[in-house]
Amino acid sequence: MGMEHLESSRETGCSNMVTLGKLVKQVLIPATYGRAVFLRQGQFHKVIDVQGKQVCDFFAFDPADPTVFLSPSHTRSANNQMHLVVGKPLYNNARQPILLLEEDTVGVHDMRFAACDPARYGMYGVWQHRSCKMNILEALQEFNIWLPVFPEPVNLFMNSPIDKKGKMSILPPVSQAGDYVILRALKDLIVAGSACPMDLNPTNDFNPTDIMFEIYEA
Amino acid sequence: MGMEHLESSRETGCSNMVTLGKLVKQVLIPATYGRAVFLRQGQFHKVIDVQGKQVCDFFAFDPADPTVFLSPSHTRSANNQMHLVVGKPLYNNARQPILLLEEDTVGVHDMRFAACDPARYGMYGVWQHRSCKMNILEALQEFNIWLPVFPEPVNLFMNSPIDKKGKMSILPPVSQAGDYVILRALKDLIVAGSACPMDLNPTNDFNPTDIMFEIYEA
Repeated sequence: MGMEHLESSRETGCSNMVTLGKLVKQVLIPATYGRAVFLRQGQFHKVIDVQGKQVCDFFAFDPADPTVFLSPSHTRSANNQMHLVVGKPLYNNARQPILLLEEDTVGVHDMRFAACDPARYGMYGVWQHRSCKMNILEALQEFNIWLPVFPEPVNLFMNSPIDKKGKMSILPPVSQAGDYVILRALKDLIVAGSACPMDLNPTNDFNPTDIMFEIYEA
Repeated sequence: MGMEHLESSRETGCSNMVTLGKLVKQVLIPATYGRAVFLRQGQFHKVIDVQGKQVCDFFAFDPADPTVFLSPSHTRSANNQMHLVVGKPLYNNARQPILLLEEDTVGVHDMRFAACDPARYGMYGVWQHRSCKMNILEALQEFNIWLPVFPEPVNLFMNSPIDKKGKMSILPPVSQAGDYVILRALKDLIVAGSACPMDLNPTNDFNPTDIMFEIYEA
């Protein structure tokens, strides 16, 4: 069994059946847009693929210093793992565990591809297009955050198998309507998501749709 | 053949036998230290593992704006490849090709692990230790560069196989004394390297040694 099979199957999806408290906030991220919300330590953050086959480029920032942020490479390094694993933390670029993956009904996500940006669409000859990078920068304005360097994303629900020679592909997500992940905040965070607007390759099955953020008390 | 086999073997090492011009600069990076040098567009940059089994954490910056830098995730995204490939460019975080991999006598490198930093050694209970991150920040002082966010490294000669479940390991490098890569600058750059000081795991076979930077005219 190669990595391609592993990453394209749903068999790694895992649900620990965490008990959520009261729903305190619900934020719909409309297709192709971004949103940012404050997440208090101990709260649960549920990210839902509303209609299915939709990627959410996901970010998390230290409210006191937005240059300290969720880092795929530090997460991989700390867990010695290419993938997100239920029960293991996600780390920031100061090597602090900041989120714990509590539930995951999909098990297929990406921590390898950069966020789409205007230059990415330019490669397709499309010079005016919404992008995950600009969505996140736009959403962070509500918090008066300016980023000197844009972080690497955790691309929730993105299906990017790797073959045995290291070739990476992009396939439509395996997530179905209502699939989700639940993350527990290990510290106060500003979390941000973009309902990825990519419609020129299979990232979102050529049909960008909505993402839902829900925040629950413990 | 799984990825583990691929990444631990030398079979992907490739030499296109580029013709180098005059040697214009030679900079020894002593074991556990870092150095930065200016590289002009068109010049060749040879990075040599002098004694063998030594990782070089490698970085490249736009001299006009050091927040524009070599990016493993943009390199992976542009090439649809987990690995460095001879004949393919390395990209910066503005999606520009900045270096072309011309020769590679090893074929086993890492673009997944974060650079070691003081916090990494703290996890081993060692609170005072040289690190790649501080080596690079120190080396960049010569160019008056201050980085608001530290970049992801390209870890030349690092041997970090991935198994079929995504587990990443660290093994001693397969590089031998004198092994090297040659990169051609596609634009003016400040390139920086750290002869990785990690001596608490197999990254450098528990014996950090020297790296050599050589710059040649085309």
